[in-house]
Amino acid sequence: MTLAQRAPVCVLGTGLIGGSLLRAAVAAGYPAFGYNRSAAGAEAARRDGFDVSTELGAVLRRAAAEDALLVLAVPMPAVAPILAEIATLAPDCALTDVVSIKRPVLDAVRERGLGARFVGGHPMTGTSESGWSATDSELFRDAVWAVGVDEGTGVEPWERVVRLALDCGSVVVPVVADEHDQAVARISHLPHVLAEALAAAGAAGGDLALGLAAGSFRDGTRVAGTAPDLVRAICEPNATALGRVLDETITALVTARDALAANGTLGDVVEAGYRGRTAYEARARWDITGIVPGEDGWLSELRRAGQRGGVLRVL
Amino acid sequence: MTLAQRAPVCVLGTGLIGGSLLRAAVAAGYPAFGYNRSAAGAEAARRDGFDVSTELGAVLRRAAAEDALLVLAVPMPAVAPILAEIATLAPDCALTDVVSIKRPVLDAVRERGLGARFVGGHPMTGTSESGWSATDSELFRDAVWAVGVDEGTGVEPWERVVRLALDCGSVVVPVVADEHDQAVARISHLPHVLAEALAAAGAAGGDLALGLAAGSFRDGTRVAGTAPDLVRAICEPNATALGRVLDETITALVTARDALAANGTLGDVVEAGYRGRTAYEARARWDITGIVPGEDGWLSELRRAGQRGGVLRVL
Repeated sequence: MTLAQRAPVCVLGTGLIGGSLLRAAVAAGYPAFGYNRSAAGAEAARRDGFDVSTELGAVLRRAAAEDALLVLAVPMPAVAPILAEIATLAPDCALTDVVSIKRPVLDAVRERGLGARFVGGHPMTGTSESGWSATDSELFRDAVWAVGVDEGTGVEPWERVVRLALDCGSVVVPVVADEHDQAVARISHLPHVLAEALAAAGAAGGDLALGLAAGSFRDGTRVAGTAPDLVRAICEPNATALGRVLDETITALVTARDALAANGTLGDVVEAGYRGRTAYEARARWDITGIVPGEDGWLSELRRAGQRGGVLRVL
Repeated sequence: MTLAQRAPVCVLGTGLIGGSLLRAAVAAGYPAFGYNRSAAGAEAARRDGFDVSTELGAVLRRAAAEDALLVLAVPMPAVAPILAEIATLAPDCALTDVVSIKRPVLDAVRERGLGARFVGGHPMTGTSESGWSATDSELFRDAVWAVGVDEGTGVEPWERVVRLALDCGSVVVPVVADEHDQAVARISHLPHVLAEALAAAGAAGGDLALGLAAGSFRDGTRVAGTAPDLVRAICEPNATALGRVLDETITALVTARDALAANGTLGDVVEAGYRGRTAYEARARWDITGIVPGEDGWLSELRRAGQRGGVLRVL
């Protein structure tokens, strides 16, 4: 490792994801510090020995002075106000984020003129808990970390973000913003909505139904235990893509219900689901190699590799 | 334990549930034997030291001679043919079943004139595997075992079935057939259908979506890994109740989709789901006591206790 590989990291927002990232970065040997809006959260982090302040201006000035990689780790509604501060105080810093959708973040970043140094990110991990007390330096171990390869991405900030993700123990999937948002609508936001609907339907059966519930209900409703505000913050900013996949799913369920009424069979959904689960279990992560950042077409080559299930394990 | 408490058990069908029950009954000290249609399955059981034959007639005659408790452990489509044999060869045996729905079994039993000695049963357990090779004497440990308290249930067969369930390590929820079927539509059959729809929607996103999938998709689609034929055998006989709860769920999802399109919010489903999951996690199993089988009103008292979340842990 050279010094450049361990350039400082500045985490903005030290909740579950940001706080875990601060822990993981420090554990991997990065000089790292952070900002948190709530004094209680910052104080909890400081008690655990981490350098977290509630003074956003001071934190951003320090990040600019140290050429830190800024990591936006706040919910979507808080992104725009922080970007305004960054544009004023640390406009030349490399910038990434860990927000669960990518297009709205990318648009907000570009609106502020910060696009040249920005690389979107989304570690596909979490728990149903939140806040500093839930943070864990191992949260990213063996996780998938989506990293942006949108047009105009700069080599230097991209390499910094990928290196950080790898150093936290994740593998990297290169993806552009819109395709990311469509994919996570299917494999993250739809699961949340279906878990909510299932939990509500089960509880409508009263104590008898909940008393008979076993593994299929337990697993199918697990993420419905997530705080409602957090579920909304994760899903609702992806309204367009989520609406489209909800449409698809409603159509599949209506077809099943109608087939059940007409001839007592659930129809194709059973085989389609079995094939889908089988494909998920059989998915092979193959290693992307031979693409040199900065060479002609590197971004579109990485994008295509990600589409086909490729991951980066080394830089 | 008296001899009467360990009367022989005869399991008809030694797949995952029946075979596990045969193992559990033997482990609990019951004289137990069984029938299996497939020679390979029966042979596998015999190799493991269990008394399983492919000769249904001989097995039923032996059950009649030994006053065994018959346990129907075949899929719904195979129930009627076996009942015809029972009506001929062992009509006076106590009879239960472990089929995943109760009303169609109860109707088929009554049509054959076997109602007086019948007590429906449904252990709420299983895995996505099937066949003798998946059997496990501990499958019923800490599970919930639904036991019928339908009108006309006899005390003696009911006590035998409850004792067997308890001896296998389960707790017993007393329930009538129709209420059982409505409840499992919510907490077992709907989870299967939603898991199938989710798995299909995820796979429709291709390698990128499946490559980004994490915990919410993994858990939400787990039971979609069950063999399609088994899913159909579990869900489709419960078409009426499942259709009703699918209607409810489709309505909830349409409401969410429309709210998302109209104002960017998922609406009430998030809070309803969170309340439902919280109620599930907080459900308390209280012990039913003081109801004496055979006394006036015992069946309706047990039914009401089951409706309110009560379980039997001792007889």
